[in-house]
Amino acid sequence: MAGNSFGVLFRVTTFGESHGPAVGCIVDGCPAGLSLGEEAIDRELRRRRPGGGGPQSARREEDKAELLSGVFEGKTLGTPIAIMARNQDQRSDDYEELRDIYRPGHADWTWEAKYGIRDHRGGGRSSGRETLGRVAGGAVAKTLLAGFGIRIQGWTAAAAGVAAPLPGEAGFDLDAAEQNPLRMPHREIAEQALAKVEALRAQGDSAGGIVACSVHGLPPGLGEPVFGKLDALLAAAMLSIGAAKGVEFGAGFAAAAAAGSQQNDRTLRWSAGSGGDALPLPPGTPALRYETNRAGGMLGGIATGMPLAFRVAFKPTPSIAQSQQCADRRGLVREFAVPGRHDGCVCPRAVPVVEAMTALVLADLLLLHRSSRITSPEGYPFRI
Amino acid sequence: MAGNSFGVLFRVTTFGESHGPAVGCIVDGCPAGLSLGEEAIDRELRRRRPGGGGPQSARREEDKAELLSGVFEGKTLGTPIAIMARNQDQRSDDYEELRDIYRPGHADWTWEAKYGIRDHRGGGRSSGRETLGRVAGGAVAKTLLAGFGIRIQGWTAAAAGVAAPLPGEAGFDLDAAEQNPLRMPHREIAEQALAKVEALRAQGDSAGGIVACSVHGLPPGLGEPVFGKLDALLAAAMLSIGAAKGVEFGAGFAAAAAAGSQQNDRTLRWSAGSGGDALPLPPGTPALRYETNRAGGMLGGIATGMPLAFRVAFKPTPSIAQSQQCADRRGLVREFAVPGRHDGCVCPRAVPVVEAMTALVLADLLLLHRSSRITSPEGYPFRI
Amino acid sequence: MAGNSFGVLFRVTTFGESHGPAVGCIVDGCPAGLSLGEEAIDRELRRRRPGGGGPQSARREEDKAELLSGVFEGKTLGTPIAIMARNQDQRSDDYEELRDIYRPGHADWTWEAKYGIRDHRGGGRSSGRETLGRVAGGAVAKTLLAGFGIRIQGWTAAAAGVAAPLPGEAGFDLDAAEQNPLRMPHREIAEQALAKVEALRAQGDSAGGIVACSVHGLPPGLGEPVFGKLDALLAAAMLSIGAAKGVEFGAGFAAAAAAGSQQNDRTLRWSAGSGGDALPLPPGTPALRYETNRAGGMLGGIATGMPLAFRVAFKPTPSIAQSQQCADRRGLVREFAVPGRHDGCVCPRAVPVVEAMTALVLADLLLLHRSSRITSPEGYPFRI
Amino acid sequence: MAGNSFGVLFRVTTFGESHGPAVGCIVDGCPAGLSLGEEAIDRELRRRRPGGGGPQSARREEDKAELLSGVFEGKTLGTPIAIMARNQDQRSDDYEELRDIYRPGHADWTWEAKYGIRDHRGGGRSSGRETLGRVAGGAVAKTLLAGFGIRIQGWTAAAAGVAAPLPGEAGFDLDAAEQNPLRMPHREIAEQALAKVEALRAQGDSAGGIVACSVHGLPPGLGEPVFGKLDALLAAAMLSIGAAKGVEFGAGFAAAAAAGSQQNDRTLRWSAGSGGDALPLPPGTPALRYETNRAGGMLGGIATGMPLAFRVAFKPTPSIAQSQQCADRRGLVREFAVPGRHDGCVCPRAVPVVEAMTALVLADLLLLHRSSRITSPEGYPFRI
Repeated sequence: MAGNSFGVLFRVTTFGESHGPAVGCIVDGCPAGLSLGEEAIDRELRRRRPGGGGPQSARREEDKAELLSGVFEGKTLGTPIAIMARNQDQRSDDYEELRDIYRPGHADWTWEAKYGIRDHRGGGRSSGRETLGRVAGGAVAKTLLAGFGIRIQGWTAAAAGVAAPLPGEAGFDLDAAEQNPLRMPHREIAEQALAKVEALRAQGDSAGGIVACSVHGLPPGLGEPVFGKLDALLAAAMLSIGAAKGVEFGAGFAAAAAAGSQQNDRTLRWSAGSGGDALPLPPGTPALRYETNRAGGMLGGIATGMPLAFRVAFKPTPSIAQSQQCADRRGLVREFAVPGRHDGCVCPRAVPVVEAMTALVLADLLLLHRSSRITSPEGYPFRI
Repeated sequence: MAGNSFGVLFRVTTFGESHGPAVGCIVDGCPAGLSLGEEAIDRELRRRRPGGGGPQSARREEDKAELLSGVFEGKTLGTPIAIMARNQDQRSDDYEELRDIYRPGHADWTWEAKYGIRDHRGGGRSSGRETLGRVAGGAVAKTLLAGFGIRIQGWTAAAAGVAAPLPGEAGFDLDAAEQNPLRMPHREIAEQALAKVEALRAQGDSAGGIVACSVHGLPPGLGEPVFGKLDALLAAAMLSIGAAKGVEFGAGFAAAAAAGSQQNDRTLRWSAGSGGDALPLPPGTPALRYETNRAGGMLGGIATGMPLAFRVAFKPTPSIAQSQQCADRRGLVREFAVPGRHDGCVCPRAVPVVEAMTALVLADLLLLHRSSRITSPEGYPFRI
Repeated sequence: MAGNSFGVLFRVTTFGESHGPAVGCIVDGCPAGLSLGEEAIDRELRRRRPGGGGPQSARREEDKAELLSGVFEGKTLGTPIAIMARNQDQRSDDYEELRDIYRPGHADWTWEAKYGIRDHRGGGRSSGRETLGRVAGGAVAKTLLAGFGIRIQGWTAAAAGVAAPLPGEAGFDLDAAEQNPLRMPHREIAEQALAKVEALRAQGDSAGGIVACSVHGLPPGLGEPVFGKLDALLAAAMLSIGAAKGVEFGAGFAAAAAAGSQQNDRTLRWSAGSGGDALPLPPGTPALRYETNRAGGMLGGIATGMPLAFRVAFKPTPSIAQSQQCADRRGLVREFAVPGRHDGCVCPRAVPVVEAMTALVLADLLLLHRSSRITSPEGYPFRI
Repeated sequence: MAGNSFGVLFRVTTFGESHGPAVGCIVDGCPAGLSLGEEAIDRELRRRRPGGGGPQSARREEDKAELLSGVFEGKTLGTPIAIMARNQDQRSDDYEELRDIYRPGHADWTWEAKYGIRDHRGGGRSSGRETLGRVAGGAVAKTLLAGFGIRIQGWTAAAAGVAAPLPGEAGFDLDAAEQNPLRMPHREIAEQALAKVEALRAQGDSAGGIVACSVHGLPPGLGEPVFGKLDALLAAAMLSIGAAKGVEFGAGFAAAAAAGSQQNDRTLRWSAGSGGDALPLPPGTPALRYETNRAGGMLGGIATGMPLAFRVAFKPTPSIAQSQQCADRRGLVREFAVPGRHDGCVCPRAVPVVEAMTALVLADLLLLHRSSRITSPEGYPFRI
């Protein structure tokens, strides 16, 4: 409960500092009998890795997941799944300069105010490298969700002030997203945005952006009221990602300026069983469908069966090559330019982290949902 | 863990349906020795109550908190504090029409999809009345925080598309906020916004808005990394409030379009002890202050000592007098106008709920923070 | 997490001091759709109430459970079930003498060492009256378990050094247990034990005893490894009851002196489906049965399908009429005889508490168990 | 919450199967600033390792702890401490025979009934090897407790029916305990007991025993009412150890046959500050001391300041060389002798596990205790 675990039944605990021996996670609560191998984890870790010509950091991270436990003969055992990746680039000397300085926009000083001690090398635990454990755990969650027909897809919706088309708008192309370095769902717009990001980087600066995410196949009814709402848990998951500064669901902040008659989604009837997305519902319950999805796929924090839709705002990478005024441990203020080569925009690398955190929320809610009502198959009073 | 509890060490569990016998909460984990009486709770409950001429619902709720346990001779015992308010207006017949219909924008259908059963009267547990337990629990948390010098203040930053000045801008007047029915920090702008809300209500419609909140006096270091970050927990708290559709911290969504050199706050030196806001820091740690507060008072999810600043987007009240297309339990679609008189804009009543949830997050983090490091007073190895 | 909640998915939180306004509980996580009324709760509360001519305290407690939430038209809603009983006998003056004294064998001094404050009236929160909330919550759990065919039965196995026959031994008669004031499963032995308890009470003294409990109908596989084992959770549940000093499962302490060949239960085959107790097992899994049950119904903390069997040792009531040496708040030592009339032996009133705590453990494990593996009915990849 | 984590604030999660790649743990919530190195962990792991000529298994386990995270320049960072040990002896072929058989007294069948799958090699996750993670985590907890002056000591109190002297009895010698293979606190009695264990082993049989544990230096007030009592948490901790069948505190089961006047400990006055064991108490609170310790160091589940004293019953090792009747996966019953060489008595190896689990309980309660009351140093309203 000290902040390094996430989830109740499907629970991930991450560990590791950027330049310590290793990073990774334990996934506790994954049901037994799920087919799982290291390749499913490596696939997601590859998506998280800094790219080639794109705006990401040039640091090499050849992360290879090692499954330490919880899988036997290709299937999950129901026991904790421990996953580890060694940190390869541990030359501490490169970071000696950071020992006594509090970089602007980073957690250096707040971390020290909290603990009285910090590992200054590469941000220590507050480094983006911590997300490796999240992505590895999220890969397990995604595998579980896939078996239930639930699919999660994230992309960069805006970068450096350049916005991609919205889903349903002309030119929106999710296939394109995984093929350009910014992960934007439109080839030309991605190129324009990349040009702006690179121009900022040439000036020793960096760019912010927005990551969007949608989820298809959620069964109506998923989500726990009143503090365990879908949006509440997703909001916590998103804001737990470094550099995230906001989140909105469905119409989001635009809803604040709308009238009720505009925001309420018009209900259409949906004949039971006709929708491939939803699970079979209890007999007698009509399955509903809505003309629009301003609700973002949930009402009262519980899934309607429409796609989940939300957006996360990311601030620009705080590490910039420009000289900035910051303080050191003696309380002196001085100019400092963060050394090294940094991500020009965090969004493309944030996409798999947003997906992973979404998967962790949904896997947990899926298991919690099993306890929401009594089921009574014939021949036995209740079912376990 | 089924969603009705919030917090780890300072933990509130709310109970009650809108038209059941009672609503309320249990606060578990409040430290012993705190002065607490029913009047501290009643004060907050009064702020939550529907007002007179304003845009709130005309339903009478004369809520009187009853303290059932946990307080003895005016002081907390360290035991669970149970607080209850009877529901007075339980005429179920008024709601018979709602038994078979799923109101648009409400959780009627999703609740039934989850549980297979719902209390249809007034929204049952998904009613805004559930927030009474939150506000009562938040009143206890506020009392605890006040002893540490931590002050929480919320207000309506925008309603029906009309925005109030930001803190620091000309005309921003928090004293005004508690004196107009919309709780906006500017008398004239509040009147303009109220006129637009009333115009919408005259058309059988409703308005959305934005609630802002700031917190002064947080000690640097508060907040748990990496999943228990200040912003992560506050985001969960805010999105757990009905009708909330988004949250942003500091510069928020604007940060997504900014450059790194604009977003990073410039560090100023702050001589230790000079700031009334912060707690004494460990010897040798300089206390920092920033020229701006685009970070919203936190870095890496840990408090910097600058004021917390965040904003929550609320959708318009979904209950509107206009006829809307919605579905009933047989799966038929029909026109339906929600009967009764409803809030024209949820923001003014959301303000005390936003404050209460903020208080619950901070009280919990304050207690969690006590375990973050070893303290060693002289004469004894460690301190408990 | 401050100690007043029990369980993860089926979670009870009790509240209340002995002489405060009320005692009770919230049950969070009970599945929706369960038939539940106040009479099911009152039935268990009656069993807990001090009896007539038996060794129990003469204090009148006419406890009437009031259901404040969570039930609608006779069925659980899946929302928190709040249950309250008013304290009727609040004459604080009777207890003024206890304000400054630490009774021997009671938690008066330790409570004050912890919190610096205590409600001295009747033991405050450390009073046996706190168990009312447990028994009420346990009644809900029992109702849930009954639907799964799980039956819990406790009795007094020994009192004042007089032991009743063991299950399977000649004369063991569970029907008799509810008909004598000590709740022992043998009429004559109960009378002998009662005579010894009354003889002790005549001397201003009290008696200890042992409560035994068995559970039939548990599905094989119930229980969470490695820290959530059936016996681990039951042990915590039992030792959380005031006056409990030990617990043993199956052969218990006798196993410590046995050889492995004596302790291991011999496996008999058990054709699938023939046992009315167990749930249908996955195809291909043989259902086992054992010749003996020295394991007490579990191996590795997971249910075998044989009856659960365990025993709890209770110390004598610490409140005795004899004068005892104890300390007061000024640190002075003096002689003190606890005033009033007290239980001669806690066992008969502990029986329903042991049963209630057992029910709470099993209801929680039943819900947790639903997440242990993936189930794949035909026609859909996985089942929620 | 799926059973592989223990503790709230000081929380350990163990992972690993006996013959998978590795076993270990994550400790989350250890305060920052504690001096910790691999040698402190290795010391405890060595105590857990199978011995030379004693009754333990001949399997070689040269466990070397690797600290993967959470420690920087010899001090804890306040971040998760991940500890791993590779499994060296993974020849799966040796275990092929166990794939289809359910060994008597082991969790083979119950594990499979739960999960539908198990790692049959060496017991998989239900192997005693899982305790390596507990002992490693317990070593961190012991280091923390040592700084507070809290010392934990376990020993074998009985083996094969031969009992060692009790603390305070003639011949009781804790120094001797670590020098004989059974860890009994009396050299000659240890030799007698060892002879009986070896005689049983010569017959292909095994022996049970009792492990006792005492804790000195606990501050009065430690322990959380009402479900988080010292004894409740310790009971859960003890019964979570494989082969444990019972636990008793202080007078334990003997209290069940005693009279109240015998069980209540007589209070002696204790002048504040005179006892080296206890922490400074709040002004005005007298520190108490008792003539005897039948309560086992706690009243109402809260520490009195007297030593904690409890005993754990262990059943004989279920793996015996004698042929036993057991079932296989096809449901056939056959004779089976567990191959290999096994512990003759689990007690000596259980001692460090009992100590580790005790340390985990106490470290968690120590951190929880910090939130029990408000503290008010001069010059500032409250203290964080």
